[in-house]
Amino acid sequence: MKKFKVEIMPRDEALDPQGRAVKGALERLGFKTSDCRVGKVVVIEANHSMKEKDIQDMAEKILANPLIETYKVTQL
Amino acid sequence: MKKFKVEIMPRDEALDPQGRAVKGALERLGFKTSDCRVGKVVVIEANHSMKEKDIQDMAEKILANPLIETYKVTQL
Repeated sequence: MKKFKVEIMPRDEALDPQGRAVKGALERLGFKTSDCRVGKVVVIEANHSMKEKDIQDMAEKILANPLIETYKVTQL
Repeated sequence: MKKFKVEIMPRDEALDPQGRAVKGALERLGFKTSDCRVGKVVVIEANHSMKEKDIQDMAEKILANPLIETYKVTQL
């Protein structure tokens, strides 16, 4: 089995309402931060024939929205 | 400025409906996987007085639900 991780983050220029909500919640708890961004991680397990290129393909096609998100694939 | 990353994943024993949905969508696109798990990443920027211990605290208190999720803090 091969395992890959795809990390998807909102682009810097994109709004990140979830990140703002987390920043606000942390502040109310007394944690002062200067920035919070919230993204997703998808961990995919597949058999040995799966290539990093296929995972890139998945990311482009359904995991991430390239207009507002960037992604990074790593093999675990 | 210091930057930390908190990676939050559903525990293995917890159901992960989002992961199942992604697995299904990938299958419909022709990508056969044996498992998909979907988690969150929170990237936090704060000033130099912020310690990794504080981030652990944030994770325990609001970022993750320790009953059904595990988290990992790394400094970037």
